[in-house]
Amino acid sequence: MKRLSGILIFLFFGMNCFAQFTEYVNPFIGTTNFGTTNPGAIVPRGMVSVTPFNVSGSDINTWDKDARWWSTPYSWDNTYLTGFSHVNLSGVGCPDLGVIILMPTTGEVKADHKEYGSIMKNQVSIPGYYTTDLEKYGVKAEVSSTKRTGISRYTFPKGKSNILLNLGLGLTNESGAKIKIVNNQEIEGSRMTGTFCYNDGSERPVFFVARFSKKAEDLGVWKKMPEMKAESAWSDTDGQIKYYQNFTQEMYGDEIGAYFTFDTEENEQILVEVGVSYVSIENARMNLDAESNGFDFEKTKSQASVEWNDVLSRVKVEGGTKDQKTIFYTALYHTQIHPNIINDVNGQYPAMESFEIRETNNCDRYTVFSLWDTYRNFHPLMALLYPQEQLDMVRSMVDMYKESAWLPKWELNSKETHVMEGDPAIPVIVDSYLRGLTDFDVDAAYEAMYKSATTEGRNNKLRPDIDHYLAEGYVPLKEEFDNSVSHALEYYIADWNLAQFAKALDKKDDCKRFLGQSLRYKEYFDKEFNMIRPKLEDGSFLKNFNPQQGENFEPSPGFHEGTAWQYTFCVPHDVKGLTKLMGGKRNFINTLQSVFDNKLFDMANEPDIHYPYLFNYFKGDEWRTQKEVRNLIDTYYKNAADGIPGNDDCGTLSAWIVYSMMGIYPVCPGDTDYAITSPVFDKITIELDSEFHKGRSFEILTRRKNKDDLFIDKMMINGKKQNSYFINHKTISEGGKLEISLKK
Amino acid sequence: MKRLSGILIFLFFGMNCFAQFTEYVNPFIGTTNFGTTNPGAIVPRGMVSVTPFNVSGSDINTWDKDARWWSTPYSWDNTYLTGFSHVNLSGVGCPDLGVIILMPTTGEVKADHKEYGSIMKNQVSIPGYYTTDLEKYGVKAEVSSTKRTGISRYTFPKGKSNILLNLGLGLTNESGAKIKIVNNQEIEGSRMTGTFCYNDGSERPVFFVARFSKKAEDLGVWKKMPEMKAESAWSDTDGQIKYYQNFTQEMYGDEIGAYFTFDTEENEQILVEVGVSYVSIENARMNLDAESNGFDFEKTKSQASVEWNDVLSRVKVEGGTKDQKTIFYTALYHTQIHPNIINDVNGQYPAMESFEIRETNNCDRYTVFSLWDTYRNFHPLMALLYPQEQLDMVRSMVDMYKESAWLPKWELNSKETHVMEGDPAIPVIVDSYLRGLTDFDVDAAYEAMYKSATTEGRNNKLRPDIDHYLAEGYVPLKEEFDNSVSHALEYYIADWNLAQFAKALDKKDDCKRFLGQSLRYKEYFDKEFNMIRPKLEDGSFLKNFNPQQGENFEPSPGFHEGTAWQYTFCVPHDVKGLTKLMGGKRNFINTLQSVFDNKLFDMANEPDIHYPYLFNYFKGDEWRTQKEVRNLIDTYYKNAADGIPGNDDCGTLSAWIVYSMMGIYPVCPGDTDYAITSPVFDKITIELDSEFHKGRSFEILTRRKNKDDLFIDKMMINGKKQNSYFINHKTISEGGKLEISLKK
Repeated sequence: MKRLSGILIFLFFGMNCFAQFTEYVNPFIGTTNFGTTNPGAIVPRGMVSVTPFNVSGSDINTWDKDARWWSTPYSWDNTYLTGFSHVNLSGVGCPDLGVIILMPTTGEVKADHKEYGSIMKNQVSIPGYYTTDLEKYGVKAEVSSTKRTGISRYTFPKGKSNILLNLGLGLTNESGAKIKIVNNQEIEGSRMTGTFCYNDGSERPVFFVARFSKKAEDLGVWKKMPEMKAESAWSDTDGQIKYYQNFTQEMYGDEIGAYFTFDTEENEQILVEVGVSYVSIENARMNLDAESNGFDFEKTKSQASVEWNDVLSRVKVEGGTKDQKTIFYTALYHTQIHPNIINDVNGQYPAMESFEIRETNNCDRYTVFSLWDTYRNFHPLMALLYPQEQLDMVRSMVDMYKESAWLPKWELNSKETHVMEGDPAIPVIVDSYLRGLTDFDVDAAYEAMYKSATTEGRNNKLRPDIDHYLAEGYVPLKEEFDNSVSHALEYYIADWNLAQFAKALDKKDDCKRFLGQSLRYKEYFDKEFNMIRPKLEDGSFLKNFNPQQGENFEPSPGFHEGTAWQYTFCVPHDVKGLTKLMGGKRNFINTLQSVFDNKLFDMANEPDIHYPYLFNYFKGDEWRTQKEVRNLIDTYYKNAADGIPGNDDCGTLSAWIVYSMMGIYPVCPGDTDYAITSPVFDKITIELDSEFHKGRSFEILTRRKNKDDLFIDKMMINGKKQNSYFINHKTISEGGKLEISLKK
Repeated sequence: MKRLSGILIFLFFGMNCFAQFTEYVNPFIGTTNFGTTNPGAIVPRGMVSVTPFNVSGSDINTWDKDARWWSTPYSWDNTYLTGFSHVNLSGVGCPDLGVIILMPTTGEVKADHKEYGSIMKNQVSIPGYYTTDLEKYGVKAEVSSTKRTGISRYTFPKGKSNILLNLGLGLTNESGAKIKIVNNQEIEGSRMTGTFCYNDGSERPVFFVARFSKKAEDLGVWKKMPEMKAESAWSDTDGQIKYYQNFTQEMYGDEIGAYFTFDTEENEQILVEVGVSYVSIENARMNLDAESNGFDFEKTKSQASVEWNDVLSRVKVEGGTKDQKTIFYTALYHTQIHPNIINDVNGQYPAMESFEIRETNNCDRYTVFSLWDTYRNFHPLMALLYPQEQLDMVRSMVDMYKESAWLPKWELNSKETHVMEGDPAIPVIVDSYLRGLTDFDVDAAYEAMYKSATTEGRNNKLRPDIDHYLAEGYVPLKEEFDNSVSHALEYYIADWNLAQFAKALDKKDDCKRFLGQSLRYKEYFDKEFNMIRPKLEDGSFLKNFNPQQGENFEPSPGFHEGTAWQYTFCVPHDVKGLTKLMGGKRNFINTLQSVFDNKLFDMANEPDIHYPYLFNYFKGDEWRTQKEVRNLIDTYYKNAADGIPGNDDCGTLSAWIVYSMMGIYPVCPGDTDYAITSPVFDKITIELDSEFHKGRSFEILTRRKNKDDLFIDKMMINGKKQNSYFINHKTISEGGKLEISLKK
């Protein structure tokens, strides 16, 4: 990343102390190496991000959205820009959204992105602001945003300048749009989205209103015409883009857009503000009216910076290198993109799985729940640092159950996308409850969990293969790549969480039942390989078992996106039981250590990301956690575009590094203990939320004799010696300090 | 055509005397041989017609809209039905409209018309009603209409029955639509139209609301998905039709639609009513609410029949064969399709060349003005038989000038399509004025005409090549097929009419000026060929001139859709002058006669359709008119699908036969004299409109000694001997009778 020093100076002097946190965010981290984050301008949990779209239209790009599985509107490796999309996903593994694309051009209007695209030069991204020069046009594009609006400022050369609003191009594979020029300063419309993971069934329109700072001298819409046949092809626009000058009715079609043309002076700036809504065009206009600063770009940009500083200031770190701080705060930044709000300023949002409009009740409605990923560490982190937001997320999930009869699994814009497996809403909600976030409809939540944990038959939307799981305790492998073991492992964790919830709610029988079910992972344990192994319907283990099959996202019988090695230790709720199965502590530790030593560990995906912390369960071997965690941090996380080991998965890999650099990690959601490891920083101050925590702050102080001391020598909590390598959420929540002395 | 005798019995006994006229209408006349009429259900000048759409989707059809230039949604030769379109053109030479297609099917929903189409069986069409059986599904489809709504009644077999609303398929080459399921009995939406003659620039959406008599058991929308690439093609619906069950938001796209599915009993009837508007969905719903008979199909059908009988009863004919009566009344029927109303029940309509909404003032706003065709005979006929409608048409045209700064030429749904040439609104308006229809904004009309007749430069929208025409008196041939002579010949007629208008308005200088200009057709007269010949910019005639070039719509230098023969006598405003140029009466008559004898005459297109009446200008040679006209009637007009010689051109060929069978013809619009020829019928009673005519009726009585007496022996008007072979409009308008005695 290159930074304009002028901007930093402004931030420092113009915004005073706030600059300290945003200075350590590099939004380009994760924008290659399949991290799939993007450097677009966004505010925390904003519905809108204004993101450079550079993954289509030219062979000069390294990656093309239509040449392979591709899930991000931006790649660091690409240079051919075709506009700025206004609704985007960041750090996900499937394509969707990436629509409502604005693009400045000059000269003759050309609406084909293969023609109008430009090489990007001089990119800069800081939280809430992104800029690039468009080589082809000599245009400088700068973008910023509020929660529900994007603002773009284009600095044009003298001459005929255009702003295109392209509703054809998109990252989503869904198509269809309508557009209407309201007047020479405003356009409204809607774009279909919803083919997440190339699946059907999650379609939803997104609505927008775009407002221009200057009246257009010329304007119109366009549509790509279908290819015609025989004499029909006499049409001038057969298979071409057809331009409809001054067309002020609604236009509909698969590939449509609008152009506004201006006579510009040298360096003339024209601004566009775009309001977005998932409810209606009226709401998009209302959002725009409410959040717009009337084309005051600097004000919007500085508001965004203030918001980011506020959010990032929940944790203050001291010590460490600038790169380490940048890795840390960028990761924290990446935890603040999704889930994002979907409610409009009036509280309206589309209900789960329908087009009904509901209204929030003094809280935000969240969307983009990648729960198979985020339940593992992201939501515990949110409960610690951002309890109000986490509580609203839990409320959103429970409301989704009320609206659609099922809890979400991978929810996108109030549609269940049915991606990945398991019942991951359960650990998220239970974990939050046990961390003290109890102000939600607990009865409904329990009812929802009980439903998915017990409803038999294929109509169980979350656990379609529940019957055999309930009857025999495991999901049998029926088809080669049915991910059966992965399904069951998720159910065990969910059921263990449900048992904890039942216990907390004094439902003793349920607790016993679900606890029992959660321990039936043992069915999969194969003494021959001394590990988890797929099992067939008749109770026999899969023959021709290769524990390494499944590396690099190759398919593997029984396991989803991983090898048997990467799933065998994925029973965080019963480390003791697994240890026993494996033949005791030594065997367990040796086996686990061999996973690291033999490079069987995958830092790029979730099932094994708690592995390095499992050594903490064994007295005397905690040093292995300290060693492996630090090794992973240093190997996989960088202040560079490839600085995230793989898909950020809506902040899950980022939450891992935030926790790990702080020296604590929630090994098992539903268990509120954190494993302790050696922090990266000398001093970490967690600013606690007075509404949810008893304490004001919690400090983690680390003393090193030498710069590279890594291993924990001794620990004190609030001045008392700490022997355990775990610290409970409650201890932190009450405020105080953890002092750690490191040795070589 | 096959008629259900039951229907005729109903008409006779159920509706009494009215049945006599609709009985003589065969809507299948003109549905092949490029007549391009269609047998859809329509009321006089209705905005809606419900028309069987059978020109796409199967090789079993003879004609396919995508295999050649094609301009009608229905062909008599085809049998593969893909639904019923709700806005249609009839008797035009270019494709457009043919959209909002309803189709009943059974079993699994299939939205691809190539799959869902069915063979048609047992077609019946009478005015305001059409029915066919769908062989594939065992469904009987019946349709009727009001001015702004269509009604369909489908009789289903027992089982799963579907009604599809297809917004992808259409006769227009414009695409794009939106659709929204309002509830399980209603759908609303909009479809783009406007590529008339494969040209761009006349795009306009048409809005609709469709209402069902029964609640759908299942419903949804569909969209054809684009073909995807690489791993994107993993999508199940790549390049396929994607179905969105229960999708109740707006859907947009190039090829979309909606399906409603019902569980039906044997012979269960489900009805659909569709309201249409060119203003908005709200107006479409208002039109539906206002004109619907609440799914009472028989009531709507009988209302339509009553309307048709009323309109057809303006002329009563006696004598002649049943086929001759059918030819006559079907032709009169075909003059009542276009122009059609475009105003909604509240008077709103889209203004010419914009999307502004205007309101009519106690009159109807008309659209579909094919003026190059219709100015020749259609509008004089309307002024005689339907003066109120003709006056409203003139008002509509003048309003178009006020709205768009130019009079229309080929107007379609408030858009100028720029098809054909000339300035044909002038003769229409002037002719009507001189026939006594003066209650319009005469000043504005004159201003409009003066503007197009005098505005120099290429910005003259109606006469883009006016400069040379004004300076040198003719339009020179600059490019091989620039139709230059045809342009000029139209301007001469228009200018002659403008001179008549100026005279009537006492603008003497203007009269002189435009009269002078109108006679400069003489520039084209070539003594070598003794005929009209294209002329170059330098004043020389085109070399390699072949007067027969241009037959069968082949291109011809200087002439549009015709040969020099078919244009040479196209100066009806100065037959005397042309006679002189040709070297006198004998030469003129011989030359004209040779056009008929040598088969150089074209009955299928307009420039020469007045030719057979030109003999009337020469005393003693009127018998040639009687002979040639009767020969043309008998040769080209039939009670059969191929019963119109060519494209009906919005009723122009039909107006020709209506006039010709009555024995009168308006040779030159702007000249209110009718040429007289021998009528086909024994008694013709023209019921005069008391508001516009002095008389109550005018009778044309023909006495034959022998059945095939053809030549006029003597004539009496109101008991007085008539020597002239012309009768003035005024004489007819005052009521009375023309008695004609024929001889062998």
